[in-house]
Amino acid sequence: MTVNQLVQQFSRSGSFGAGRLARACDIFEHMIRDRECTVFLSLAGAVVPAGLRRVISDLIRRRLIDALVSTGANMVHDLLEAFGGHHYKGHWAVDDTLLYRYHLARIYDIFVPEEHFVEFDRRVAELFEELASQVRGSILPYELMWEIGKRIDDHDSIIRASYETGIPIFLPALRDSEFAYAYHLHLRRCPQNPLKIDTFREIAVMVDLARRSPRLGMVVLGGGVPRNTTQHVALMADKSIDYAIVITMDRPETGGLSGSTLEETVSWGKVKMRAEKIMVIGDVLIVFPVMVAAVLERLGKDFRREHRIPVRRC
Amino acid sequence: MTVNQLVQQFSRSGSFGAGRLARACDIFEHMIRDRECTVFLSLAGAVVPAGLRRVISDLIRRRLIDALVSTGANMVHDLLEAFGGHHYKGHWAVDDTLLYRYHLARIYDIFVPEEHFVEFDRRVAELFEELASQVRGSILPYELMWEIGKRIDDHDSIIRASYETGIPIFLPALRDSEFAYAYHLHLRRCPQNPLKIDTFREIAVMVDLARRSPRLGMVVLGGGVPRNTTQHVALMADKSIDYAIVITMDRPETGGLSGSTLEETVSWGKVKMRAEKIMVIGDVLIVFPVMVAAVLERLGKDFRREHRIPVRRC
Amino acid sequence: MTVNQLVQQFSRSGSFGAGRLARACDIFEHMIRDRECTVFLSLAGAVVPAGLRRVISDLIRRRLIDALVSTGANMVHDLLEAFGGHHYKGHWAVDDTLLYRYHLARIYDIFVPEEHFVEFDRRVAELFEELASQVRGSILPYELMWEIGKRIDDHDSIIRASYETGIPIFLPALRDSEFAYAYHLHLRRCPQNPLKIDTFREIAVMVDLARRSPRLGMVVLGGGVPRNTTQHVALMADKSIDYAIVITMDRPETGGLSGSTLEETVSWGKVKMRAEKIMVIGDVLIVFPVMVAAVLERLGKDFRREHRIPVRRC
Amino acid sequence: MTVNQLVQQFSRSGSFGAGRLARACDIFEHMIRDRECTVFLSLAGAVVPAGLRRVISDLIRRRLIDALVSTGANMVHDLLEAFGGHHYKGHWAVDDTLLYRYHLARIYDIFVPEEHFVEFDRRVAELFEELASQVRGSILPYELMWEIGKRIDDHDSIIRASYETGIPIFLPALRDSEFAYAYHLHLRRCPQNPLKIDTFREIAVMVDLARRSPRLGMVVLGGGVPRNTTQHVALMADKSIDYAIVITMDRPETGGLSGSTLEETVSWGKVKMRAEKIMVIGDVLIVFPVMVAAVLERLGKDFRREHRIPVRRC
Repeated sequence: MTVNQLVQQFSRSGSFGAGRLARACDIFEHMIRDRECTVFLSLAGAVVPAGLRRVISDLIRRRLIDALVSTGANMVHDLLEAFGGHHYKGHWAVDDTLLYRYHLARIYDIFVPEEHFVEFDRRVAELFEELASQVRGSILPYELMWEIGKRIDDHDSIIRASYETGIPIFLPALRDSEFAYAYHLHLRRCPQNPLKIDTFREIAVMVDLARRSPRLGMVVLGGGVPRNTTQHVALMADKSIDYAIVITMDRPETGGLSGSTLEETVSWGKVKMRAEKIMVIGDVLIVFPVMVAAVLERLGKDFRREHRIPVRRC
Repeated sequence: MTVNQLVQQFSRSGSFGAGRLARACDIFEHMIRDRECTVFLSLAGAVVPAGLRRVISDLIRRRLIDALVSTGANMVHDLLEAFGGHHYKGHWAVDDTLLYRYHLARIYDIFVPEEHFVEFDRRVAELFEELASQVRGSILPYELMWEIGKRIDDHDSIIRASYETGIPIFLPALRDSEFAYAYHLHLRRCPQNPLKIDTFREIAVMVDLARRSPRLGMVVLGGGVPRNTTQHVALMADKSIDYAIVITMDRPETGGLSGSTLEETVSWGKVKMRAEKIMVIGDVLIVFPVMVAAVLERLGKDFRREHRIPVRRC
Repeated sequence: MTVNQLVQQFSRSGSFGAGRLARACDIFEHMIRDRECTVFLSLAGAVVPAGLRRVISDLIRRRLIDALVSTGANMVHDLLEAFGGHHYKGHWAVDDTLLYRYHLARIYDIFVPEEHFVEFDRRVAELFEELASQVRGSILPYELMWEIGKRIDDHDSIIRASYETGIPIFLPALRDSEFAYAYHLHLRRCPQNPLKIDTFREIAVMVDLARRSPRLGMVVLGGGVPRNTTQHVALMADKSIDYAIVITMDRPETGGLSGSTLEETVSWGKVKMRAEKIMVIGDVLIVFPVMVAAVLERLGKDFRREHRIPVRRC
Repeated sequence: MTVNQLVQQFSRSGSFGAGRLARACDIFEHMIRDRECTVFLSLAGAVVPAGLRRVISDLIRRRLIDALVSTGANMVHDLLEAFGGHHYKGHWAVDDTLLYRYHLARIYDIFVPEEHFVEFDRRVAELFEELASQVRGSILPYELMWEIGKRIDDHDSIIRASYETGIPIFLPALRDSEFAYAYHLHLRRCPQNPLKIDTFREIAVMVDLARRSPRLGMVVLGGGVPRNTTQHVALMADKSIDYAIVITMDRPETGGLSGSTLEETVSWGKVKMRAEKIMVIGDVLIVFPVMVAAVLERLGKDFRREHRIPVRRC
């Protein structure tokens, strides 16, 4: 049985999570096939360390999405691997004091050697130094990703795929990641003339992109700042989202943005009243690969989707 | 891509829920292939109304499980369909006062016409009357299911599959279901000589089955009374479970049995210290079909597993 | 600041969980003050081991509730203490294989010595033997609790409080608990003439009680079989619940009864369209004591509520 | 019964959530009484709209915390009220398309008139213009808050309290909030010489503060970027956190930072192996006020805690 056949069964008779997942596959297919839709994929949670790196870079290379909005950490972990590091499969029930002694950082059931971060800091601080002398004014986070992508040679890398395709990676909370530490090192070395990273100006670029898009699609993995930014950009562009998928384990009753319903976003005007929209309550690492596999199967090998609206600095 | 190929990918690189699901598939395969293992499938939550009816009756007919432990409600809904009723695909965000006026009972996004329950009550009360004159002493819940299975003609029915294969359906909380209402009607009609349903004696049958089983496997959907009963039976039989899979959305911190870890069950001696065991945090309606599809693919079409240890009254 | 003062603040300005908790306190107060309301307290999860034993027996002794609907396990743990046993404060992050070796059963962060269960089995099996010779026909679970309550001398015991006040403890899944093991021992000793426990007849008693009650109130801790039974009894009595409070961590999307919304119960006719109703998403061990403390403060020390509608066998 | 008396009961006999909450109160008391501890309060989720504004500004004014790390949105909502706006108590089950038509944005059960945001944008854009001409180089987010605090006259405001006490509000994802829209307006008006907000330089200030602190305490409401930043700052300062409290509904199995255990943070060296630490699983709007009320009662009215380590630009 293929993954899509299973999802088709969910479509016919499945309720609860299965019904929601089947609906998500339909909506994902619709937003990809809609030639006038700009698709934003929004990442929070440790999806890159947990193994979705190639799935996402493949989506970018096949141009099935038009923009990524991510936490800084996911890009850090993309680079750890591009720099030769690894995410090791560990176990969730281990003694963390032991891991600490052996310099292994744990992300649930993944182990990351501390030395990978040291390597990351060294290399990225050097890059900041190099860019500080080249960049006039300030650099925006998505441009920084392109500069990095230009310098790495890893076909599976999300950042490399972004550079090669021109599909931007927006990073509204870039500072909240290991990039902060590299920047901190950089500041100490070049206190006079450091690289200026302007996260605020990136807003205008995102708003401009949304404004030029006839329709907007959003796929949210997890929630957090990347979800909020994506929804807010639509509003700032005087637009509303036409297709929306959220995959999360968070719940609405605590009032947090991550667990808020897509109906709630309608009251804000962020998502259209008549948008195709669904929230799937489940583990991103299960639900997203199932959805992607089912939709790729539907699209077929020869499907080509051209990325039509390039991002532009403004 | 087949479902099993996706799960194999999860095995290699998947973490979090994906890693747990991949492990669950391996354990499910192992317990089925172990010729000396008695497999208990434990059902709570509205899995039958939500569409798993045929998946479960198929597992029974293929003898991939050896016993079912269920809430009463799932058997009620199996019968609703056997009696010609339907579970309609509805929506979760509807006005329940309207549904009430139209006599439609809602189970999340499923609608059930009230008249199906009326029909159920009538038919089952009649059956109770018929059995009251036939049964000496008392009937046990799994025997009641066989008596019902004998009288229905529905190949997809779990109860029918149980009757045809002799694989028992144990119902530790049968009373907490629409069977209670049918019994209530029956009591009013036959106050002198009602059918006696002895739930307590069924314990001995379960314990006996567990005692004669060289090894025990448990697959829990949801949790609740069926999970607790399954685990407790192992203990009462001076055994421990060798293979354990729990699929649930409940969490351990509230102290409830449904969300308790499989490690906790080790302290009770219910699950073996070295058991193959995993808990998958996710929606049963997504996770279980993926697991079953992957394992059926691994087993192949010609796989035959004989049910070796018949249940016996004692 | 008193607990009620804090809740009053929640009433004025609190949203999310705080607003729900404030509403729950109001509804609990209303159902207690309503002289024509029969209040059912429904228990699932390990609330007795976790320390709510005295809170609940006190509610019974003060006649603030009129009936208890519980899992068997909570009554088992009430008796463990009445028989001189203890629930020890442990820790959730311990090695369960070690606990197993030391014969300590773990319930999240509570440790229970295995010997307490051995003592329980011995004593209860003896009691079954004693009752087998006294009881004509069969005994109902709530009557069994009274027989036990008569024989224990523990003012904090829920079962003792039930016996002294005549407030019944209904046990729809009594079999799914350590009582099963005691019964199993009993069956082996007295195979010819064992005590007959009739759980099905208890339904009629519950329905009769509900039918004679002008109004119905329900407070659910957790969910599970006790919640389902309480709601179903209202339906079987051709009534609907007027006041409903559910405290749980379960969520609706998986379709399980425990997490289902109170709106959903309206479609079934179990809860009135215009009932005062609220679901509080939170840990029972925090939320329920806060609610009880706030409402007791509101009622004052001299408040007396007479239990008006006695349960009767039918 | 006072709130602290209830918590004391939890300390003695409470398990599950109650035991965790009792432990959190002890740890919060310890970190406040430790004269060498710098306490970071980390805010995510809509805690300000939901009614914790005065609780938090009071904690700042009483100097019981030393730094705030927040989402931008919470500061936006603090300002909405300072600018004369209100958060209205609504309901979660309303028709969001209706709210959209009436220009009411919903945050779970809170309604916010859209015009409040329009007013916010206008005023903050004006402020940006004013500051653009005054500030040399760039302004850091916490300095921006002080500039705003200087200009508002609202004793309950968190931003005002920060200005008056010098206790900083760090905003690692300031851009992901309505401040972005105000900045966007500002950019269009002053394209040549806009205000430069440097979020990256704020890292150095946080690291410096942590480095000069003999011990570090962390109270996390929710999770997200503010939790990650707080933990990461400790690491960047070559320190580890000594006291840690996390209140959240998120769970660890999905691998997200918000639900990750405090044990996991030990592997990273962010929290000390022997730190006093606890995670309370519950609604922040219930758990945090209970904790604060209990600890304030313990401290007594006359308790004074001096804020010893001032933040400094570096």
